[in-house]
Amino acid sequence: MSQSYRVAILGATGAVGTELLSLLESRNFPVASLKLLASPRSVGKTLTFKGEALTVEPLSEQAFANVDLVLASAGGSLSRQWAPKAVEAGAVVIDNSSAFRMDSQVPLVVPEVNAQAAAHHAGIIANPNCTTILMSLVTWPLHQVQPIQRLVVSTYQSASGAGARAMEEVKQQAQAILNGEEAIAEVLPYPLAFNLFPHNSRLTEAGYCEEEMKMLNETRKIFGVENLRITATCVRVPVLRAHSEAINLEFERPFDVAQARAILSQSPGVRLVEDWQANYFPMPIEASGQDDVLVGRIRQDLSHPCGLELWLSGDQIRKGAALNAIQIAELLVAKRWLAVPTLA
Amino acid sequence: MSQSYRVAILGATGAVGTELLSLLESRNFPVASLKLLASPRSVGKTLTFKGEALTVEPLSEQAFANVDLVLASAGGSLSRQWAPKAVEAGAVVIDNSSAFRMDSQVPLVVPEVNAQAAAHHAGIIANPNCTTILMSLVTWPLHQVQPIQRLVVSTYQSASGAGARAMEEVKQQAQAILNGEEAIAEVLPYPLAFNLFPHNSRLTEAGYCEEEMKMLNETRKIFGVENLRITATCVRVPVLRAHSEAINLEFERPFDVAQARAILSQSPGVRLVEDWQANYFPMPIEASGQDDVLVGRIRQDLSHPCGLELWLSGDQIRKGAALNAIQIAELLVAKRWLAVPTLA
Repeated sequence: MSQSYRVAILGATGAVGTELLSLLESRNFPVASLKLLASPRSVGKTLTFKGEALTVEPLSEQAFANVDLVLASAGGSLSRQWAPKAVEAGAVVIDNSSAFRMDSQVPLVVPEVNAQAAAHHAGIIANPNCTTILMSLVTWPLHQVQPIQRLVVSTYQSASGAGARAMEEVKQQAQAILNGEEAIAEVLPYPLAFNLFPHNSRLTEAGYCEEEMKMLNETRKIFGVENLRITATCVRVPVLRAHSEAINLEFERPFDVAQARAILSQSPGVRLVEDWQANYFPMPIEASGQDDVLVGRIRQDLSHPCGLELWLSGDQIRKGAALNAIQIAELLVAKRWLAVPTLA
Repeated sequence: MSQSYRVAILGATGAVGTELLSLLESRNFPVASLKLLASPRSVGKTLTFKGEALTVEPLSEQAFANVDLVLASAGGSLSRQWAPKAVEAGAVVIDNSSAFRMDSQVPLVVPEVNAQAAAHHAGIIANPNCTTILMSLVTWPLHQVQPIQRLVVSTYQSASGAGARAMEEVKQQAQAILNGEEAIAEVLPYPLAFNLFPHNSRLTEAGYCEEEMKMLNETRKIFGVENLRITATCVRVPVLRAHSEAINLEFERPFDVAQARAILSQSPGVRLVEDWQANYFPMPIEASGQDDVLVGRIRQDLSHPCGLELWLSGDQIRKGAALNAIQIAELLVAKRWLAVPTLA
């Protein structure tokens, strides 16, 4: 006798939403029933789950009745509006938006890093930002051996980070440019095909954009190190899917490269991709569709006696979003931290 | 009465070579005669200079007779072979390859940074690597106010850095992918369209690739600071032309952001591109074809009290190669550091 759960996906038709659906099926999550919810624009659309056609339903006060688990990926404002109602109705919400991430009542969880934090939820658990998840996976195992003193990261973020429409736009722009025509930007502020630009999220007063502030603040919260010194430069690049990051780490004492490599080759959710002879390292096309974050080019920083350089590529939609959310759900199930299990 | 010079371009048909030709014309360099030299593959091709068709000639011992100035851009092995012969024949060589850059007898020159170094040449002057030129232009003016203590850079390098054929290959790959076909990589080791990868230059023992070592060693030589602490991660991105760089600088004392901005807005060869309201900063498509290196996103590093973050985009073929070489030639002319002027 196994337990199964009544699940709802909020924002089922988006890039992350469809991946959530596919992962629930492929990972054989114990689903008793599945409800697809979305904004009016998508209501009535049909998606398939385990061979069964499901129709997208509208959001409403009643939509969360008899739901144990909500996987929310419909943006911050919808989450802010509906997640508390879902909790009121008795569900646990795993929220992929930034709405609750820095809320002190809400655990921010990467299961490989701080699974235990999920135990103390009050109905909502936040899924971190994609770039943060990828970075925390490869830096946390090193941080366990020697606390990180400072972290400098530059990102190479794919169009998927701006959603399915941005991915489509980049392809259209590329075709236009190849045809000698003008590239039109509607979803993103500037043409991204054969171009790149600093991440276009809102700029804060300090000159960091929100995407960068997420990397700073969320990593601190996940690591439980309030004053962890991090700086980030986030950049959108004309890659369709999977983000990459160049990470510079400073420690208090030298970090042996061979040890770092040994640690990361055994870390959960991480795959060491390094062929120094062949100049073969993580690439976004190879990280796409993969569960693991690929890491490589681990080397001693020549500018700092206690520095280490790393390079990663990871699927933004999978481990950077949907997979991490599903892993949180699996964690809740395994630990019996989901509130209202239904006997199947 | 003005002087003019007998010029030869070695490697005239390449991406940088054709730009050299175009800049000699557009900047009205005092050319008495122009000879185009190249490897056998390109001999017989015709290029136009000031409305006149010039045929590419083969390299030979005699090719440098009666030549005052050689602009070499045909790769390291050809430079190593032919530059000394050109000097023997009485010419001054401005070499765009890496062959002589770290030779202590050879000045390595960015005119805005260390023009005076060119005075002491012994026939060969080296043009630095593209990423180094761009970085030195925006960091040198700050270094004058407060010496840089450490520099961490991540690059976003366009296909043009691997030559005209790589640019063509990226376009073909993009079209293949848009057609649902496989992207074929022949010039570069991996598909670059909608992908990116760590720079594919040879890896050194320390785990840095040669492109990265160039940034470390050449910047030290140009700045005249032998032990300048620099680390670099070089990455090829699917941009056609113009490189970008995320630069983290550490100083001994805090560097006022407003002051940094004021300095860079008045630095030669640099253009400040910052509209914080519109989230508008340097982009490779806007840097392409520009003489100036675009710099922006200047901000206080939140991870370091004396840190500064910068972002730049600069045309790899222009200021990153051909323009810098022509500026060195103009400098030699202006300072009368060219050996054998011819009266016109």
